[in-house]
Amino acid sequence: MGASVATLADVAERAQVSTATVSRCLNAPDRVAKPTRERVLAAVQELGYSPNFGARALAARRTGTVGAIIPTMDNAIFARAIQAFQEELRAHGVTLLVACSSYRPEIEEEQIRALVARGADALLLIGHQRSDAIYQFLDRRGVPALVAWVHDPDATRPSIGFDNRKAMQDLAREVIRLGHRQIGAITAEQRDNDRARARIEGLCDAMEAQGLSRDDLALVETPYSVEHGRQAFARLMRRVPRPSVVICGNDVLAAGALQMARGMGLHVPGDVSITGFDDIEIATLVDPALTTVHVPHRAMGRQAAQLLIEMVRSGTPLAESVELQTDLRLRGTLGPPPG
Amino acid sequence: MGASVATLADVAERAQVSTATVSRCLNAPDRVAKPTRERVLAAVQELGYSPNFGARALAARRTGTVGAIIPTMDNAIFARAIQAFQEELRAHGVTLLVACSSYRPEIEEEQIRALVARGADALLLIGHQRSDAIYQFLDRRGVPALVAWVHDPDATRPSIGFDNRKAMQDLAREVIRLGHRQIGAITAEQRDNDRARARIEGLCDAMEAQGLSRDDLALVETPYSVEHGRQAFARLMRRVPRPSVVICGNDVLAAGALQMARGMGLHVPGDVSITGFDDIEIATLVDPALTTVHVPHRAMGRQAAQLLIEMVRSGTPLAESVELQTDLRLRGTLGPPPG
Repeated sequence: MGASVATLADVAERAQVSTATVSRCLNAPDRVAKPTRERVLAAVQELGYSPNFGARALAARRTGTVGAIIPTMDNAIFARAIQAFQEELRAHGVTLLVACSSYRPEIEEEQIRALVARGADALLLIGHQRSDAIYQFLDRRGVPALVAWVHDPDATRPSIGFDNRKAMQDLAREVIRLGHRQIGAITAEQRDNDRARARIEGLCDAMEAQGLSRDDLALVETPYSVEHGRQAFARLMRRVPRPSVVICGNDVLAAGALQMARGMGLHVPGDVSITGFDDIEIATLVDPALTTVHVPHRAMGRQAAQLLIEMVRSGTPLAESVELQTDLRLRGTLGPPPG
Repeated sequence: MGASVATLADVAERAQVSTATVSRCLNAPDRVAKPTRERVLAAVQELGYSPNFGARALAARRTGTVGAIIPTMDNAIFARAIQAFQEELRAHGVTLLVACSSYRPEIEEEQIRALVARGADALLLIGHQRSDAIYQFLDRRGVPALVAWVHDPDATRPSIGFDNRKAMQDLAREVIRLGHRQIGAITAEQRDNDRARARIEGLCDAMEAQGLSRDDLALVETPYSVEHGRQAFARLMRRVPRPSVVICGNDVLAAGALQMARGMGLHVPGDVSITGFDDIEIATLVDPALTTVHVPHRAMGRQAAQLLIEMVRSGTPLAESVELQTDLRLRGTLGPPPG
């Protein structure tokens, strides 16, 4: 693509909107406020932007390879959705290459650049949080990127995913309804993880809605692993007053917590309740099975593949977010507080 | 690399040996039988092959990207080793891209070609079994490939891994020593999976060494998943005579078997014993914990990365296999047969 040809990103910059908004103006103009639409269409005209040119250029240089960057391959949190994502891509003749960032933004950035340099037609990324510079890099290179695993009504970029905050709020509401007041939580490291932060916010929303103070939440932040879940649970059980429930940021942490409870001679849920998040396979393999939030991993992976293929085909970013629904799975690890 | 410059593969073809043997002749000539060595060195001279040329050419076009193709990302069988593999690569400034073949050779072949086309400096592959054509393709393109997860003393290509057959034989010997005579087994599909076949061979070795006939083995072959493990276990429990032990090809199948046993009201190990293979995290999360074969996944991943980096640096294939040791982890799911 010569520098003299206007790109979607150029139009977005001129009109002071996101590339998604430009895409929406072109594909679904009735969903864009009139002043925005007029500003975008003016920019399109001024720059002589042709939406089809991008698509034709992409088609010409297409490699049939799509990249995905997930935070970890260890633990099965991302595995199921990525497997479904790959199966759907393959049904369309597309090869998937996966990189793992170990939850580190600087590694993810290297991997985004490596995948683009290696000719990826499009990328799947987890969560919204990354530097503007890398989003701009993707826009400039004309590589569409789809954000998954989150649906944040306040985000400016569209995504496919679920509302982590609302999902955790639903679970916490049920916990509080059962009578729990001393609430402990184990969260993944929040700094670079918008999903983890949203889940804690949802938990605090539910506490405040029931007249509890978020300051009373006994919170331990830890890396993701069974062993870290074990250690974090042990720390929470030393708190005074001792939590009657431990709400875990995912099923892996919850499985560790459950194992440690057993090791400490605590009965679950008689002495302490434990909840997870994700409903990965491990949730029903442990005994008692985990009460958790069911995430439609396979549906998310499949739909993400379809969206990404359409983004490559049309040469435009996702125009509108796709929200998937989660639901509570009430199983053996959640009961009323003791006594 | 111009077509007029001899490659390692050209030398191997001329001398009628594998590229690994050529590499061994150049790097550790005392480990190669004299007639072979002389044939190889003659070919080197005739073709004017310069071992350093390959390395220099590789250095010039190096991308800092390594590919790995694993059979599945679902389940954690490969996850831990690949995570360690990636961490070690990154410590050397190398980016890892992973593809998943869903245990299908034709998909693996597409992915090998895609990774080479996308500029991978080297590849990690699981198991020996694949077509000669694809090995020749890699040789021609000068992309070193390291085979992992297996150590087969009879294989012609070197690898890093463990002896699947011997490991399962050790486990089965212990099972038979406890008195089990009615033996059931759940294996992954064997056709395209040399690790699965080797494990079943090891089990039969142990049976025959104790005077049992391999024809008496009640064997169910099934895809890898908890659900398939559940169903396969239920089928085995309908056999007459009913197996007193179910030996599973990996921990995922064993976790499914254990869950189904609980569902059927069978006590483990009082009514039936169950064993796994791999010692992934799930093995100690289920209750009782699985008796299994511990595979040094992290060590294998780390060492594979070091070997691959050396292969890229030197421009030659692995000269000698690296064998890692497994060991038995005797936990709660194995006991004497009932009665």
